[in-house]
Amino acid sequence: MGRLLDEIREQPDVLQQLIANEWANIQEIARQISARDVRFVLIAARGTSDNAATYAKYLWGNVNRLPVALAAPSLYTLYERPPRLRGALVIGISQSGMSPDIVSVMQDARQQGMPTLAITNAPASPLARAAEFVIDCHAGEERSVAATKTYTAQLLAVALLSAALAQDATMHAQLARVPEAVAATLTLDACIAQAAERYCFVESMAVVGRGYNYASALEIALKLKELTYTSTTPYSSADFLHGPIAIVQRGFPVLLAAPSGAAYPALLELATELAARQAEQIIISDRPEILSHAQRALRLPMPVDEWLSPLIAVIPGQLLGYHLALTRGLDPERPRGLSKVTETL
Amino acid sequence: MGRLLDEIREQPDVLQQLIANEWANIQEIARQISARDVRFVLIAARGTSDNAATYAKYLWGNVNRLPVALAAPSLYTLYERPPRLRGALVIGISQSGMSPDIVSVMQDARQQGMPTLAITNAPASPLARAAEFVIDCHAGEERSVAATKTYTAQLLAVALLSAALAQDATMHAQLARVPEAVAATLTLDACIAQAAERYCFVESMAVVGRGYNYASALEIALKLKELTYTSTTPYSSADFLHGPIAIVQRGFPVLLAAPSGAAYPALLELATELAARQAEQIIISDRPEILSHAQRALRLPMPVDEWLSPLIAVIPGQLLGYHLALTRGLDPERPRGLSKVTETL
Repeated sequence: MGRLLDEIREQPDVLQQLIANEWANIQEIARQISARDVRFVLIAARGTSDNAATYAKYLWGNVNRLPVALAAPSLYTLYERPPRLRGALVIGISQSGMSPDIVSVMQDARQQGMPTLAITNAPASPLARAAEFVIDCHAGEERSVAATKTYTAQLLAVALLSAALAQDATMHAQLARVPEAVAATLTLDACIAQAAERYCFVESMAVVGRGYNYASALEIALKLKELTYTSTTPYSSADFLHGPIAIVQRGFPVLLAAPSGAAYPALLELATELAARQAEQIIISDRPEILSHAQRALRLPMPVDEWLSPLIAVIPGQLLGYHLALTRGLDPERPRGLSKVTETL
Repeated sequence: MGRLLDEIREQPDVLQQLIANEWANIQEIARQISARDVRFVLIAARGTSDNAATYAKYLWGNVNRLPVALAAPSLYTLYERPPRLRGALVIGISQSGMSPDIVSVMQDARQQGMPTLAITNAPASPLARAAEFVIDCHAGEERSVAATKTYTAQLLAVALLSAALAQDATMHAQLARVPEAVAATLTLDACIAQAAERYCFVESMAVVGRGYNYASALEIALKLKELTYTSTTPYSSADFLHGPIAIVQRGFPVLLAAPSGAAYPALLELATELAARQAEQIIISDRPEILSHAQRALRLPMPVDEWLSPLIAVIPGQLLGYHLALTRGLDPERPRGLSKVTETL
């Protein structure tokens, strides 16, 4: 057993700590943000953190009715012509708080007089220092190159801010159940270790989600690439039907992140279509109907409300990345040619 | 010779027609938009049109300093909680103007009293009827399922609007040279037909660009998927270094869209790194230094300014998709399991 599996297993505790330690701070941040004339949110992030930003785009768009733009950091670092930010709340998400391009976005927003927020696991980092408000992810040191516990902590920070902005006590009660649901999902470990054998020689695959779980598709695909070097492409089910479904032939592996909720019928329809094309389906869901189409069904034991489901649905993907790496004789702690902090300019 | 190749070859004429027929209308639209309090742009699009939206995000962000958000149409169709759009200019981009989710975004924006613009090849479509302003792409009927001439027409419409908003005569003069540069790029056809032989049995590959040409990476990857069923994943070079580069081993094919400009040094650095990993590189560029790293160099014969380079850099990708399909005995007119208009809900 290695560090990565330890970090995956720490997630229930990390999430519990985050709720306990940051809820008061996040409520205060929400109060201060609500007092400003915020018309839209601009988020700067890279890699795993960018997948958390995609979750924010759907969650804040839906629950808080805030349009969310994902920043193009190149506009700052390559072209040096940052957009005018009148009306923006600018948020940087970064585990390390070190990536210079993300810090640039923050510094420019501060100069333009806009409210700025850092969501980071490093509250003394350059990103945190550049921001007016900081949410500390309290995930503890993450030593594995592949981010796991810091990703779910970022998702939870995004969810807590949504609940605080909405001033919705029901949401907060639902949030409190997440750590237990993550712990229940971790019991899939043995089942996933077995499934990994089957996919030992897969060279390319697709991962599909929609709505809130488009973020899960992005993050699971990234874990599979980093840990197992499989050429894995993420899709929203809607975009998948607009062209890429052409690549699917008999036996082509597709992983679906399909928990209950408003996006579920679209995923069920896709699973039916994929079954007709005799694709190989790995399905993460709590619903027996869609799971019946799977060659490998990963049944979520403790469903949560759809808006929180990305915190649960990503867990089987993390475990699959870990076990597939082991099955292939790869070192999950040291992916080829990656370092923990990537400083893109 | 088939319809698809005809449509690829029509592009210089289509672009010429678009400039001639729409410039006055686009200037008028720019005047009217400038009179409103627009703080950010929200674009709704799917598939190829979404890649044109990515170009708009970089171009309008840089030249016009407008923050651009790409809409999550699911927020409208699945969750029925559209974001509040105060301060937004809302744009729908769609070849057919038929996709119900894109039309929903437009109708909602109109109801919220926001300025709306349709960029479409079908000026009598539901999308155009829902919008306050319309830019007609004048591309003529596109019969092939894989969009080519409508994509470059959308890019040009985006570029024309940028020039009109900036009231920049130099930009307009640069735009006028694009049709000739596209025609020059089409002379790569024979060279690409030959290169396609080499890649006949490739099952998966990556396509990388950055800045303006991140859109080229997205669109070339989509063409290769649709036309050749290759599992092809697009990346910005910055994101690629944040994890996915782990998949690259000796002989792994990577296509780089790397014309001259501010993004070029990042691509050159990546090409050097990929050469060290003995990747197989297909490079689209006008610069000899980066082309020297390529196993197959696709030299752009007539460079244009970086902001217009996506109109040129995508052409070799379209031709590669076409010839790779032929080499594999596939029908480029009828990709497996796709139809021309995809009506996602």
